[in-house]
Amino acid sequence: MESRNIRLAVIPGDGIGTEVVAEGLKVLEAVGTKIEPTHYDLGAARYHRTGETLPDAVLDELRGYDAILLGAIGDPSVPPGILERDLLLRLRFAFDHYVNLRPVKLFPGVTTPLADTPTENIDMIVVREGTEGLYAGTGGVMRRGTPHEIATQESLNTAHGVERVVRYAFEKAKARPRRKLTLVHKTNVLTFAGDLWQRTVNRVAEEYPEVATDYCHIDAASMFFVTQPERFDVVVTDNLFGDIITDLGAAIAGGIGLAASGNINPERSAPSMFEPVHGSAPDIAGQGKADPTATILSVSMLLDHLGLHDEAAKVEQAVAADIAEGRTGRSTSEIGDDITARVSG
Amino acid sequence: MESRNIRLAVIPGDGIGTEVVAEGLKVLEAVGTKIEPTHYDLGAARYHRTGETLPDAVLDELRGYDAILLGAIGDPSVPPGILERDLLLRLRFAFDHYVNLRPVKLFPGVTTPLADTPTENIDMIVVREGTEGLYAGTGGVMRRGTPHEIATQESLNTAHGVERVVRYAFEKAKARPRRKLTLVHKTNVLTFAGDLWQRTVNRVAEEYPEVATDYCHIDAASMFFVTQPERFDVVVTDNLFGDIITDLGAAIAGGIGLAASGNINPERSAPSMFEPVHGSAPDIAGQGKADPTATILSVSMLLDHLGLHDEAAKVEQAVAADIAEGRTGRSTSEIGDDITARVSG
Ligand SMILES: CC(C)[C@H](C(=O)O)[C@@H](O)C(=O)O
Ligand SMILES: CC(C)[C@H](C(=O)O)[C@@H](O)C(=O)O
Repeated sequence: MESRNIRLAVIPGDGIGTEVVAEGLKVLEAVGTKIEPTHYDLGAARYHRTGETLPDAVLDELRGYDAILLGAIGDPSVPPGILERDLLLRLRFAFDHYVNLRPVKLFPGVTTPLADTPTENIDMIVVREGTEGLYAGTGGVMRRGTPHEIATQESLNTAHGVERVVRYAFEKAKARPRRKLTLVHKTNVLTFAGDLWQRTVNRVAEEYPEVATDYCHIDAASMFFVTQPERFDVVVTDNLFGDIITDLGAAIAGGIGLAASGNINPERSAPSMFEPVHGSAPDIAGQGKADPTATILSVSMLLDHLGLHDEAAKVEQAVAADIAEGRTGRSTSEIGDDITARVSG
Repeated sequence: MESRNIRLAVIPGDGIGTEVVAEGLKVLEAVGTKIEPTHYDLGAARYHRTGETLPDAVLDELRGYDAILLGAIGDPSVPPGILERDLLLRLRFAFDHYVNLRPVKLFPGVTTPLADTPTENIDMIVVREGTEGLYAGTGGVMRRGTPHEIATQESLNTAHGVERVVRYAFEKAKARPRRKLTLVHKTNVLTFAGDLWQRTVNRVAEEYPEVATDYCHIDAASMFFVTQPERFDVVVTDNLFGDIITDLGAAIAGGIGLAASGNINPERSAPSMFEPVHGSAPDIAGQGKADPTATILSVSMLLDHLGLHDEAAKVEQAVAADIAEGRTGRSTSEIGDDITARVSG
């Protein structure tokens, strides 16, 4: 049977986004998938040209794709929050990407900034909630610019939203050799939200007797990421804590140049979106200095999500082999070419 | 002139709190201050015995002291949030401890978990806001325990609250050799609160042309604490981000056993409170395993706050000398005795 082409929406975005996405696509083509990419011009440039971030018509169109590959969004020329909220977060919310999946894994050959930490000690997966919490954007400001100004932000947490991501995390934990799930939150201060998260984990845990369940405050977790990363196998946490802890995870696993992520809609009612954890890095944009590995690993996650498990594994193995060689001083496209060669070979 | 005795309220609290506070007091006496300590029995034991966390009468009494020394609060036998909110946070709020001062400094002789990081690269001070943000405790829950439950938490930020802590941070930065202040927030997502913080920093910065002002998102900051801690000199941030980043700071500076803190009321309208950053560590309580150094360094901050700068320096130097010897395997009281000997000597 001739399988139909994969329809892929590509949003290179800002800064180094364009550069790393080009390498991701190279690898995707080389791995032998029938892929039909369509590029979307969204980000700072379009915003400056037309004032648009994500027109409704484009959002509707994107809904028809099998998956989205995104580079990076954000530029200092645009006030903070505009592109992030109206483009990146809008996509995550509109397509109900309630699982933001971020592996934290130290590849052999990569130097972690942590002393005396064997490679196998850093191997976890963070399941970050992607559609609620403080990212809801609710809140407001009163008496702006006066000595009596008040600014609020609200964290919104629903049983629906928490339970589905917790269930996903338990499924992940069940499928891994260590079968351990750690809830990271701040239940002693965020008592309302923390109580909902903790009760949900406790309840769902009853259905997963084979999974060991643990709890860790976000402050302690930040410490343990550095001092005892082997404590963690699967971590489930809310949107903001997940944001923080996955950058920290990227740091301990050798840097933001290697950290991949998937914004997943597990029910497939809309396309899932894959992107490196790093940002648009305007300071090094256009210089061929960016490491495309995080994007290429995100491509591997994308393939896996689409059921192309062999291709996904092939890409991940190519990356692992490339990293193991420990080559330095390569440009963005040289790294992409080297990985592409391994995938084709 | 015969100076009057320092009236010190001592709250050992739970778990290892009692053990480390005893050593802090030893050192305080040895350094030759005229100090009159009064112990307050507050924490899990009292809660179980009487149901009380912090009776109003006790709060009123505490108001009359020159300072408070606190060990640690919290025990697994008490539901999360009760002692934290009604005792620890209540003290911080009631006494308007709007500056939560947390040095992150690597002492020579201490091993950081970060590879290849010279001692001098980790030397910053975090000025954490202590009375607002998500710690306000506002929020709520609706339809609890049903599939339609909603739980909210609110971050409350006021011009008053943000400006005073930002001013304090600029003063600190001005007095340090590097004169650099970094705001850590998440302005691209928490747009209302972030905007207030950023505008406040920008405005106050105009009065401090000698201080270099920088900004860093909390996620990036967590990464940079591990990969480039030398980026930071004075960090100013909100209550929750400060909570997270100072535990991370403790980790990179050699561990939670060394991290001191002061909950400061700069106007002295109520006593300031000094406490180690670590918690009550019930797992090692009563075994003489806790490191009292963080408490002893908190005592040094306490002396400094009371204007006893020579005594404060003496305690800090004694700690530094003790650490530099790199002795291991000592019990809580042995460490306390060794530092006491140096202070008396
Ligand atoms: C750019 C920003 C809105 C985003 C987030 O906070 O989720 C980024 O930090 C990430 O982690 O993907
Ligand atoms: C115990 C807890 C409420 C407290 C906080 O979150 O402030 C602690 O973590 C700290 O950092 O002093």
